[in-house]
Amino acid sequence: MALDVVIMAAGKGTRMKSARPKVLHRLAGRALLQHVLDCAAALHPDGLVVVTGHGAEEVEAAVAGEGRRFVRQMPQHGTGHAVQQAAPLLHETGTTLVLNGDVPLVAPATAQALVAACGGERLALLTVTLDDPAGYGRILRAPGGAITGIVEQKDASPAQQALREVYTGVMAAPTAALRGWLARLTNDNAQREYYLTDVVAMAVADGVPVVHAAAADETEVLGVNSPAQLARLERRYQSRVAEALMEAGVRLADPARLDVRGRLDCGQDVEIDVGCVFEGRVVLADGVRVGPCCVLRDVEVGPGTILQAFTHIDGDGQPVRIGREGRIGPFARLRPGAALGDEVHVGNFVEVKNSSLADGAKANHLAYLGDATVGARVNYGAGSITANYDGANKHRTVIGDDAHVGSNCVLVAPVTIGAGATIGGGSTIAKDAPAGQLTVARARQASYAGWTRPQKAPPKPAP
Amino acid sequence: MALDVVIMAAGKGTRMKSARPKVLHRLAGRALLQHVLDCAAALHPDGLVVVTGHGAEEVEAAVAGEGRRFVRQMPQHGTGHAVQQAAPLLHETGTTLVLNGDVPLVAPATAQALVAACGGERLALLTVTLDDPAGYGRILRAPGGAITGIVEQKDASPAQQALREVYTGVMAAPTAALRGWLARLTNDNAQREYYLTDVVAMAVADGVPVVHAAAADETEVLGVNSPAQLARLERRYQSRVAEALMEAGVRLADPARLDVRGRLDCGQDVEIDVGCVFEGRVVLADGVRVGPCCVLRDVEVGPGTILQAFTHIDGDGQPVRIGREGRIGPFARLRPGAALGDEVHVGNFVEVKNSSLADGAKANHLAYLGDATVGARVNYGAGSITANYDGANKHRTVIGDDAHVGSNCVLVAPVTIGAGATIGGGSTIAKDAPAGQLTVARARQASYAGWTRPQKAPPKPAP
Amino acid sequence: MALDVVIMAAGKGTRMKSARPKVLHRLAGRALLQHVLDCAAALHPDGLVVVTGHGAEEVEAAVAGEGRRFVRQMPQHGTGHAVQQAAPLLHETGTTLVLNGDVPLVAPATAQALVAACGGERLALLTVTLDDPAGYGRILRAPGGAITGIVEQKDASPAQQALREVYTGVMAAPTAALRGWLARLTNDNAQREYYLTDVVAMAVADGVPVVHAAAADETEVLGVNSPAQLARLERRYQSRVAEALMEAGVRLADPARLDVRGRLDCGQDVEIDVGCVFEGRVVLADGVRVGPCCVLRDVEVGPGTILQAFTHIDGDGQPVRIGREGRIGPFARLRPGAALGDEVHVGNFVEVKNSSLADGAKANHLAYLGDATVGARVNYGAGSITANYDGANKHRTVIGDDAHVGSNCVLVAPVTIGAGATIGGGSTIAKDAPAGQLTVARARQASYAGWTRPQKAPPKPAP
Repeated sequence: MALDVVIMAAGKGTRMKSARPKVLHRLAGRALLQHVLDCAAALHPDGLVVVTGHGAEEVEAAVAGEGRRFVRQMPQHGTGHAVQQAAPLLHETGTTLVLNGDVPLVAPATAQALVAACGGERLALLTVTLDDPAGYGRILRAPGGAITGIVEQKDASPAQQALREVYTGVMAAPTAALRGWLARLTNDNAQREYYLTDVVAMAVADGVPVVHAAAADETEVLGVNSPAQLARLERRYQSRVAEALMEAGVRLADPARLDVRGRLDCGQDVEIDVGCVFEGRVVLADGVRVGPCCVLRDVEVGPGTILQAFTHIDGDGQPVRIGREGRIGPFARLRPGAALGDEVHVGNFVEVKNSSLADGAKANHLAYLGDATVGARVNYGAGSITANYDGANKHRTVIGDDAHVGSNCVLVAPVTIGAGATIGGGSTIAKDAPAGQLTVARARQASYAGWTRPQKAPPKPAP
Repeated sequence: MALDVVIMAAGKGTRMKSARPKVLHRLAGRALLQHVLDCAAALHPDGLVVVTGHGAEEVEAAVAGEGRRFVRQMPQHGTGHAVQQAAPLLHETGTTLVLNGDVPLVAPATAQALVAACGGERLALLTVTLDDPAGYGRILRAPGGAITGIVEQKDASPAQQALREVYTGVMAAPTAALRGWLARLTNDNAQREYYLTDVVAMAVADGVPVVHAAAADETEVLGVNSPAQLARLERRYQSRVAEALMEAGVRLADPARLDVRGRLDCGQDVEIDVGCVFEGRVVLADGVRVGPCCVLRDVEVGPGTILQAFTHIDGDGQPVRIGREGRIGPFARLRPGAALGDEVHVGNFVEVKNSSLADGAKANHLAYLGDATVGARVNYGAGSITANYDGANKHRTVIGDDAHVGSNCVLVAPVTIGAGATIGGGSTIAKDAPAGQLTVARARQASYAGWTRPQKAPPKPAP
Repeated sequence: MALDVVIMAAGKGTRMKSARPKVLHRLAGRALLQHVLDCAAALHPDGLVVVTGHGAEEVEAAVAGEGRRFVRQMPQHGTGHAVQQAAPLLHETGTTLVLNGDVPLVAPATAQALVAACGGERLALLTVTLDDPAGYGRILRAPGGAITGIVEQKDASPAQQALREVYTGVMAAPTAALRGWLARLTNDNAQREYYLTDVVAMAVADGVPVVHAAAADETEVLGVNSPAQLARLERRYQSRVAEALMEAGVRLADPARLDVRGRLDCGQDVEIDVGCVFEGRVVLADGVRVGPCCVLRDVEVGPGTILQAFTHIDGDGQPVRIGREGRIGPFARLRPGAALGDEVHVGNFVEVKNSSLADGAKANHLAYLGDATVGARVNYGAGSITANYDGANKHRTVIGDDAHVGSNCVLVAPVTIGAGATIGGGSTIAKDAPAGQLTVARARQASYAGWTRPQKAPPKPAP
């Protein structure tokens, strides 16, 4: 039986006060619509239609992908009108699931349950039971429990207002019946809009059973209409992530000060201190400890490695890899293309970009390694810089195993420092340095006894 | 009709456990008393009297300004006694508004409403309705609603204790009547103090109508008596700031982790990540994105510019200016006098002080630019330093457009690098470098084959 | 009368999902068991027995100390079985206090009160009154108030479920009687375990009075069974620390964003901004201000010193000492052995390790001071480095009073810069520099007019 998913993504989101279409605002680093698409994809639908409208081109470009079709709803005349636009693209029969592009956290299991409740034969409504249902449409049921309709807040009697089961805006319908109902929608109401919820009455009238599936909690079905709502949903999402990590054994110093915008996989005995931000895909192996205020994006960290405070790592899509028992930071920055072996130390105010450091290499203080291949056990001195950019092109620096580069050196790439070489502090190395030898480029030191220090300039006379 | 404002600022604040007078403690970066003075100034009063006492000299010095007069209450014998000190400075008639120097968040609109309620004829009390009124003086009203008095918590009957409308300590009174009431105050009470609230009974007795104006919420009228109360009020204040920013369209990753101590103006589509602190006056233009844990004080940021994590900017009173489409940080520090054009990049571990960078200039890695004028499209190399201080005076460095300064250079100011010049890595430049030419100051590189590395010293023998 | 303390520390803590024994997980930087041991030590017991089991060797090694004896419970057959293992080590008479190794926050005063309630004659139970007692064993009392037993949640009648006084798992018993009760425990229950709580019924049967001491609040008696519980208890602990600091006059920008893992002692008028982490022992003298996101461990800071944002200090067991009126940060790092006099400035991207800076010394920008003795009023230039490590041994750098070290210098240790010496920018100093003189090591500057810049390489042809 065919499953079609229709995602309503045409709204403007005026209260967002943004030039960006509402469904492209990000929750946990992904567009609201992307969350909904990911939920839909988990159901492996036979068809997927996104109804766009405001900012249609931008939305379509942002989420284009195989198997996704777009229809435009312009202008927008309500939720029923939105689904009408998608109707020609639906299968003849089967089930159609209607999701909202601005309700990002419906769980795949919940959507699956709703589709199952429909079964191509029943109208299935996603409902949720709230402590405070004010403002929501209440689910009306016959004495036997059968759903008989939805009553809006403003039309609800006091007894109906006491009902706590509400409609979430998400439904699954028999496709053939839905197509008929959509055709019969009218806009005889104050807003002159076509409401999708009107199909409930039609189903009842047609004798189609109306059933429900229940969302696990309110968070699943909250929509986003303003930055404040977005922020609140972000915190709920992050709170769930934190709970799940702790459930898996991760120790968090403060679950309220963790942000995961992407996927964080942790081994055993991982500890994460306060104020850390994770983006993209981050993997922390057994025993990794992350200090306060680290910002990590696209990185894989090996067992036992310690990331000290203010470590900033950004793989930008490709994982930065760090081996086991490393010691990074504080105030270290690893950029795309950094690849660290085991027991590597990268210390304070050190930047590593597009460079590999083999096992046991150390760059502990105020240094830049860009486009470099650094051998095992190399000691890269404080203040030393790879001059990888000649103003036009980038070149590589190669440093052999066991080399010792002194302080404040400049390695002018392309250049090779041989294995076991020693580079004297303060040297600018523009030619290859032989393995095993001491290489220096140093001016003669001279002292001047008669020299007097500059004096403080007298204050300028008033003009 | 004349409006006088009296601000009570004489209290010691013993529970603050501080050498600083209580009203000079800071909320959102400004003294409590300054908040109250700002509220008063918004009413454009004809007279403003601050009643000082504990730490009077320090308080008066901290907030001295045109149109502000000070009277001293020494010793302190209560709130009525405080206003008595100000009485000789009030106009003959009109309205007198009495504010508390340790109740910082009364909104100008609320104070204005209170003044209007008084109208020079009625005693107007600022009240607030609380869910939990325990500890506050309750407003007593006649059956018709007229205010008949205030009953303190300890004197309240059970029925009175159930009243939720309470007095806030703020009132506006007809000046002429107030002067008379103040003269009749007595200290026949356990504390031997003169209470300003006693004027309510006098007004009732004199047939002066007692009316009220309502504070919007409890936050407006909370006083500060301890560091804990100060911290709680700070969080409430910050929460209101966050809500207002989000209402205006700003996206906050976590509204509970934002601190604005001053004024933050944001364009459209501004995003602010967790843990940021804003001080002084900060302006973020359209599309600015602020990464985690940025600390910004007195800065104006142009459209589309990205401030990455741990960016620290401090204009110290004069705005640091950053143009459009800039990319700053992570770990960048801009200090007073920094002025950046469009599309400027300032990267990790780079400090800029009293320097301008023209459009397209880049200083991406571990560098110091102090007292420098940097031309357009200049590439300022990793580890390079402007030696702007000779131990006695500061000198300027001028770098022409399109110059390329290599890594770990020292530019000994005063010095000029010509347009299009290239400075070889590791050079110390003490004389001007001609435009368009390569300038280097580099020692000859030599290698020593016979050299052997230092050996690990043997452990010292036990003494 | 002898006091024995038995600490149950044998549990595995399966829900921690950790290779570490549960009682070694850290709360506020110390092992759970260490908190309990510290509580016990405050009572100066005559005997202390820790019952270990899971991870016994690791636990015993972690907390071994004078006067602590260990017995092993392997396998574990319940709380009564645990105390049975300790019984042979207890004194003949007196009081035995039983604590849980995973209930870390019992206050010494509470434990003392429980011991006093026992008095070697009565069975004393530590109880607490909860708003929501669900899940806990309720204290049953006779009409006169005498404790008659404990009823578990699952066995409680509705009336009993309404009781809010619950047992905490902590008790003090007359040692002689306890030994007898332990011998009579049976495991006739579903879990086939020996429950320590069964002694309550035995005491009642034996006519031994059962009394109670009350915990101050739930936080005191919360146990840790999962990372989520550990995180919640951590936040409660930190909240209490914050309240206590504010009560003492410390101003906290946000009490919810403070972490103290150790001991923080503050003078008057100390201000601590958001997001700071304190570890080990930190002392902040009068008027110290700590900026946002500072990480401080084992440091003593003198009066009036300002630590700006992102200051990272780690004494690693020995205090880093900073004098009065210092100015540190932002982005400064002080490591073990740093010792700063008065009015010392350490600025951005500066690292100091095992070095002393005398009064008025300054290292303001991008610098490394390792194994250095820096005199008074020294100005240590931007980008300058002490080359303290020759690849095998560390050597000292000595810089005399009033010396001025230029930018991007390398001081190759062992080396001495004389008092009042000036070192020219960009110099590598490998020999001692005479006092009062200018010393430079600088290559001749030359410009090349015919030189042309490298060109952008053409893109590689497709293979």
